[in-house]
Amino acid sequence: MSTAQADENLTKTGFKTDEIRPLIWDPEKETIKLIDQRALPYELKYVEISNPQEMAEAIKDMVLRGAPLIGIASAYGMALAAKLGQDLCLSDKLLRSTRPTAVNLMWALDQVQAVIQGSTLNSNQELYQKILTKANWILEDDIARCKAMSKVGAEYIKERHCELTKRSEDGAAIQKKLRIMTHCNAGALATGGYGTALGVIRTLHSERLVEMVYADETRPRQQGARLTVWELVQDNIPVTLNTDNMAAHLMKQGLVDLVITGADRITVKGDAANKIGTYGLAILAKYHNIPFFVAAPQSTIDESLQHANDIPIEERCYSEVSHINGESCTAASGVNFTNPGFDVTPRELITAIFTENGEFK
Amino acid sequence: MSTAQADENLTKTGFKTDEIRPLIWDPEKETIKLIDQRALPYELKYVEISNPQEMAEAIKDMVLRGAPLIGIASAYGMALAAKLGQDLCLSDKLLRSTRPTAVNLMWALDQVQAVIQGSTLNSNQELYQKILTKANWILEDDIARCKAMSKVGAEYIKERHCELTKRSEDGAAIQKKLRIMTHCNAGALATGGYGTALGVIRTLHSERLVEMVYADETRPRQQGARLTVWELVQDNIPVTLNTDNMAAHLMKQGLVDLVITGADRITVKGDAANKIGTYGLAILAKYHNIPFFVAAPQSTIDESLQHANDIPIEERCYSEVSHINGESCTAASGVNFTNPGFDVTPRELITAIFTENGEFK
Repeated sequence: MSTAQADENLTKTGFKTDEIRPLIWDPEKETIKLIDQRALPYELKYVEISNPQEMAEAIKDMVLRGAPLIGIASAYGMALAAKLGQDLCLSDKLLRSTRPTAVNLMWALDQVQAVIQGSTLNSNQELYQKILTKANWILEDDIARCKAMSKVGAEYIKERHCELTKRSEDGAAIQKKLRIMTHCNAGALATGGYGTALGVIRTLHSERLVEMVYADETRPRQQGARLTVWELVQDNIPVTLNTDNMAAHLMKQGLVDLVITGADRITVKGDAANKIGTYGLAILAKYHNIPFFVAAPQSTIDESLQHANDIPIEERCYSEVSHINGESCTAASGVNFTNPGFDVTPRELITAIFTENGEFK
Repeated sequence: MSTAQADENLTKTGFKTDEIRPLIWDPEKETIKLIDQRALPYELKYVEISNPQEMAEAIKDMVLRGAPLIGIASAYGMALAAKLGQDLCLSDKLLRSTRPTAVNLMWALDQVQAVIQGSTLNSNQELYQKILTKANWILEDDIARCKAMSKVGAEYIKERHCELTKRSEDGAAIQKKLRIMTHCNAGALATGGYGTALGVIRTLHSERLVEMVYADETRPRQQGARLTVWELVQDNIPVTLNTDNMAAHLMKQGLVDLVITGADRITVKGDAANKIGTYGLAILAKYHNIPFFVAAPQSTIDESLQHANDIPIEERCYSEVSHINGESCTAASGVNFTNPGFDVTPRELITAIFTENGEFK
């Protein structure tokens, strides 16, 4: 396999992904700044959100995405509703309707509802402060959970998949470096910060255990090419971009030691909904005897769901398939399209699921 | 699954794929007209080729592609060399070096070499006529082979995979219609005309046995989205476009009865090299107990090759991955790329291989 460096003049922003915050509360303006993820990697620009309607649009239009981040953003949307004295019930309903698959959205809005229900305060201003405090907590807590689950995942992988193959000159053991494949973006940009699957990779990299990350392009929205590559390049983590259909060939060539992805909803049995393509990747990993891991916060586990078939799969607009990066039309008129946003990977294809509380069993 | 009709204003050309000829000899100008496949489906335009150097460039740049068509084009390249009195040995070498994976290229040039070796004529003009006759024969013969293998494949599939599920009002048996997935383009545009895998589909469609064709987009060059969809739309064969990573999910939903692809080189054991992504698709079909077929002319079988590992896999320019349709850059600077053009599907993942001579065993 030959590789080549891109010569495009895309700006490196110079800040570490560890410090990337896709959602920032502006305490002076009392509004929210979102990284416009649709513009990456071409441009790092922010969108200002000042009411729940704008937040709902931003979630639907994928200004932001990623199950944990959608949850965080919806909590801030409720804080804005309270600040503006809007109907909290309608705002809750609006935000819940934005994306059907990720359960963290429902979880975060339930957290805010508990604040509203438990509050004896009658002033909007006081309720706003309570909800804002909750939203700030959900954000900071998410970053802490990402770091905790990354430690869980990294320890698990180090114990089982970094065989001590060599000894250095002074006789100390040298751990094997890993070639890791990932799909879509489960990084800082999908969470409050640090990331889930990319959090595990980041923790392994901090211990010099990552030789290469293979990033699936992830059609039809290229989150792997646009977001995962961007994140890893900021952190100087070695990354190779491959189209989704190259995964099996790379595995067969012995270039992939393990696969790790995030998840949008996990049933109590451990079946995991995630970005379209994850299920196929898990089958390919199984066929090649490569371990397949999922990293997600506890809030991704839907205690109410026994059966994978009950997970709603979002069917998105066909223009994502007919166009690429919003520009090129690829197919002749008269064709039909299908555009399921997610698929479900059954538990038996998953080697282990990492959460902030340890391995989910 | 919901589907939607594209509303793009791409022109339907109005002629049947059955009549599409991607390579036409112009007897007046004594040059070759090639459909510029890079421009499809946006525009149906032709490129004129008047010497072997131009033909070699056209093959390398993928003005034309598809293993059988590359073979045909190389034979015409030799005819042009003879016509112009160019060094036939150098022309042969140049054409052989254009694409390493497809073996039909070598086969066709060997056919022309046999004409040259067997010729006692000393005049360039007479040799030119002999090679041109051979090239014309290879072209027409390829179409006949496509039609023969399509019949072989359609009969095989009808016997085994179109269970008689219903009876019509007068008691006659009604055959089940098929949902067929394909990858890349193995159609009229990949051959002299009619196609290999799409030839089988076309024959089944002529007997009203096709309910839906699922066309994999086929990154990084979108031959599925651009070429296969275009061909099928011309013939009014129902087609749905999916991104490569949706295949597993569609299979799991029970939407795919069988998969059929072409091949670029087949070993004597029956391992088949084809467009990148084919190998993964075959694994996914196996996992879902869906039959996986390959259709290719006898000239695709490389009698000299025992081992799949000996098939040279072309590594193409990274810009195909970093760009989409030559326009958009998707990934941040600093990333590595990999771009294997092909992969190899082992015989055990293939249900049957159809050639013009029957099933290849």
